[in-house]
Amino acid sequence: MKQTVGVVTLPVADLAVSRGFYCEGLGWSAVFDDGDVAFFQFNGFVLALWTRSSFERDIGAASVGSGYKMALAHNVASREEVDRVMAQGRSLGAKILRPAALQPWGGYTACFADPDDHVWEVAHNPAWPVSEEGYLTYRAGS
Amino acid sequence: MKQTVGVVTLPVADLAVSRGFYCEGLGWSAVFDDGDVAFFQFNGFVLALWTRSSFERDIGAASVGSGYKMALAHNVASREEVDRVMAQGRSLGAKILRPAALQPWGGYTACFADPDDHVWEVAHNPAWPVSEEGYLTYRAGS
Repeated sequence: MKQTVGVVTLPVADLAVSRGFYCEGLGWSAVFDDGDVAFFQFNGFVLALWTRSSFERDIGAASVGSGYKMALAHNVASREEVDRVMAQGRSLGAKILRPAALQPWGGYTACFADPDDHVWEVAHNPAWPVSEEGYLTYRAGS
Repeated sequence: MKQTVGVVTLPVADLAVSRGFYCEGLGWSAVFDDGDVAFFQFNGFVLALWTRSSFERDIGAASVGSGYKMALAHNVASREEVDRVMAQGRSLGAKILRPAALQPWGGYTACFADPDDHVWEVAHNPAWPVSEEGYLTYRAGS
């Protein structure tokens, strides 16, 4: 597994409150915001503020034992690489939160939790380019 | 506040277990490891696996109400910018976990929690260069 993170997700209770804090307050500017999730281009990855209830449905959080607060996505170049990393994780005893599957938005993703229940999504998102160095850039259409 | 993250910290119960999972298992390679904290160079930031007990002393986690799992650091170019971001956060009602102070390792840092108790450290680390785009590179001696 390459040492890269494509998305850092902060689940939030109320996106309007978070928008007030981060956008109006601290001056962040979103590249996408549909009222449920907002994306921000960071240094080499996307930071997401995501309404907790829908995020939990997305990652299969019900099976994360001790709770979690943030989640990291490891973005890879192909579906095969998603399968390969998930197989590695499984062989190491990682808790599989959601097996690999095609997503309605066009990606292919899966989720596991590490020995401390830190949540990782392994994702192939064909719409978001990842450079050779692992820097991810947001693109509309994902 | 610029949209940048310099460090993503995953507190862990037992660094040896995490090292087994991430290094021996998934093939990560640390740039620093003193048995208590391990640093990994990621795409434009450092990922830290940090023994939870000492991490909690470091960030002042006792005052984080609803618990937390990961923490983000926003690395800035000067002590003045640490003070400026913390003043912004305070004016927005952010919970101040640790006021700004010089650290034994030479940095100047402070911590706050956002409306969802997501933990942010605001840090000036003179040893770790941050590029104009916000990409942070690990350097020994911090």
